[in-house]
Amino acid sequence: MVSKEIEKQLSIIRFGAVEIINEKELREKLALGRPLIVKAGFDPTAPDIHLGHTVLLHKLRQFQDMGHTVIFLIGDFTARIGDPSGKSETRPILTDDEIKNNAATYEKQVYKILDEKKTKVVFNSSWMDRLSAADMIRLASQYRVARMLERDDFDKRYRGGQPISVHEFLYPLIQGYDSVALRADVELGGTDQKFNLLMGRTLQEHFGQAPQVVLTMPLLEGLDGIQKMSKSLDNFIGIDEPAIDMVTKTMKIGDTLMWRWFELLSFEVSLQDLARMHRDVELGTLNPRDAKLRLANELVTRFHGKGAAERALAGWHAVVRGQGDTSILPLKDIQIPVEGIRLPALLRVVGLAASNSDAHRKLRERAVRIDGEVVVDEARVLLPGFEGVLQIGKRNFARVQLLPDESS
Amino acid sequence: MVSKEIEKQLSIIRFGAVEIINEKELREKLALGRPLIVKAGFDPTAPDIHLGHTVLLHKLRQFQDMGHTVIFLIGDFTARIGDPSGKSETRPILTDDEIKNNAATYEKQVYKILDEKKTKVVFNSSWMDRLSAADMIRLASQYRVARMLERDDFDKRYRGGQPISVHEFLYPLIQGYDSVALRADVELGGTDQKFNLLMGRTLQEHFGQAPQVVLTMPLLEGLDGIQKMSKSLDNFIGIDEPAIDMVTKTMKIGDTLMWRWFELLSFEVSLQDLARMHRDVELGTLNPRDAKLRLANELVTRFHGKGAAERALAGWHAVVRGQGDTSILPLKDIQIPVEGIRLPALLRVVGLAASNSDAHRKLRERAVRIDGEVVVDEARVLLPGFEGVLQIGKRNFARVQLLPDESS
Repeated sequence: MVSKEIEKQLSIIRFGAVEIINEKELREKLALGRPLIVKAGFDPTAPDIHLGHTVLLHKLRQFQDMGHTVIFLIGDFTARIGDPSGKSETRPILTDDEIKNNAATYEKQVYKILDEKKTKVVFNSSWMDRLSAADMIRLASQYRVARMLERDDFDKRYRGGQPISVHEFLYPLIQGYDSVALRADVELGGTDQKFNLLMGRTLQEHFGQAPQVVLTMPLLEGLDGIQKMSKSLDNFIGIDEPAIDMVTKTMKIGDTLMWRWFELLSFEVSLQDLARMHRDVELGTLNPRDAKLRLANELVTRFHGKGAAERALAGWHAVVRGQGDTSILPLKDIQIPVEGIRLPALLRVVGLAASNSDAHRKLRERAVRIDGEVVVDEARVLLPGFEGVLQIGKRNFARVQLLPDESS
Repeated sequence: MVSKEIEKQLSIIRFGAVEIINEKELREKLALGRPLIVKAGFDPTAPDIHLGHTVLLHKLRQFQDMGHTVIFLIGDFTARIGDPSGKSETRPILTDDEIKNNAATYEKQVYKILDEKKTKVVFNSSWMDRLSAADMIRLASQYRVARMLERDDFDKRYRGGQPISVHEFLYPLIQGYDSVALRADVELGGTDQKFNLLMGRTLQEHFGQAPQVVLTMPLLEGLDGIQKMSKSLDNFIGIDEPAIDMVTKTMKIGDTLMWRWFELLSFEVSLQDLARMHRDVELGTLNPRDAKLRLANELVTRFHGKGAAERALAGWHAVVRGQGDTSILPLKDIQIPVEGIRLPALLRVVGLAASNSDAHRKLRERAVRIDGEVVVDEARVLLPGFEGVLQIGKRNFARVQLLPDESS
């Protein structure tokens, strides 16, 4: 590859990345002129891809567009072991069927972003299942306990007196060995993965391979604006979620988080545009809500197309701002007993209230509306056949149709 | 087993042991009335059995004499892995042939103490080779890093900033798993093995087995009187060593160590006898040298028989005390150039001096004798055909015969 082309690729790769370890090696690898093997690992326990994942996936897509090969590694070996100490709920033991289903779910979603023809999906069980206890011991000999304990989360837990099981020291080694098995040239991960990504370099060198380049991407904060977006924290927007939910959730995030999401998720708004928007908001010439609508529009268009995005935004305007026809909103069918359902119970069932007592409180606070009208009657019963928009506060709503549940 | 018999066995087992974890469980196991499975592990890297090992082996023999089954476990699995980090010289990688030879050497020696008919020799590779990496991970999940780091040597090294490789955390787990595979009822080891022995209990409980009773034996100090007797420290008396060497080495130990050896090694001197001897030495009515001779006599008789012991003791008297005929000493053949060898070089060759310059110094100090006569001539040359007793100081000697080395 000519030097100019290398520098062009480098600038694309560099954009949005937190760290590249190291650029010199990456330049050398690009100069080889062959498609590089670019690895990223995914945990099959929670296969719903959300916006947080897309930061990484879009970077992978960039590599594909430059002609490189992406390896989408599914870490099924450890998922089938689960957390054998039984202490962690986030590591259930998955069966082969569950893993197969989760992998299929991943693939279905991931090709919304990745180029299927340039993606190789692999399972690390295909080499890890053949590894013996003796091989595992040899791997473990390549790393020191003290350095393992330097990993941020281990360090915190060790100092805090929280238990770390010995097998947790083996998992980074397995991730590193995956790079050896794949002869990876580059591995991508979130900044919280840096330690494990570097393990690949250590083990590749031990096995006589050129160490992979490690590229870390920023972590996207979830809806709460504080913690990393993740399924287990329920602060995520899945890329398979209905358009209206994407819009609603996006419109609820705080302004600070909005700027961050623009930065990490938008393709249409350059960093310069972003600085200008920021200034306009400060000067009062741009309403942050309108900026947020632009972000929502871009995201929904990306995953659902232009038409769906327009309908979802119109629906949001109809309910939240009282502008337009709410019948544009998607309709949720809810089965209820033939004798009807009390309003507080319905609010709970459709997810607008956390509990019946929460629903009662909201009703007393005059925060509940049906088709735009405030409702305070806590004893109100809705019957099968009802269709309308339930709303709590300004931004939480559901358009429902009540059907009789004959079986109950 | 009737209660009286159980108590009798318990008192035999208890004698000389440092700790039994725990006696209640041991009593219950003895009450089962079946032969117990009594495990002790040995490292095949250095198969020379020395007096230090015999403390443990005699305890095993007691179990055999009470009808129990002893499992002599050879830890070949880890020996074949060696120290994969290449940092430890004490863990060379052994080949299958080396292990087979070392095991044969062990067996040849060990039946000087153990009852062959009641001993099962097993190799842990027979189950460990079948263990997968996944199994190893599951084992590792049963133990916590913090507890691993509580092990004395790990604790010291970790605090001292000395490296510990991650695989070293796996070895205690393997030792523990051996107990699971063998369904061990009792495991014996030195006090320095306590941590690893307890690991057997942890893993057996995890696998639904009754935990083994752990019995620790004291560690015998080596010839230096300070460090544990071990081959690598070269402070040992091997049970296969010539009788004269056993006597010479034993007669050189300090008085404090002598009492310790009596306590841990003697069968003939009871603790009461020992207290009496101790008092007699203090009163000046017993020469400590005579006590030491009694110890040497007992040890040599045990491993070489009565006749050999008598000859060796007579030889020692002949040289060291100038009493009797030195021709009773075993003769070492030394090949030298036909033109002869200088005395300092010869002293080095037979191991009486650490180096030529050391030999020169000893000659100048008038510490060297040939056949009882002080020699000071540093240029003296001895020719093939010479036969006599070389001596440095009071207690170091060798009876040699010089033969011409035609090939040189």
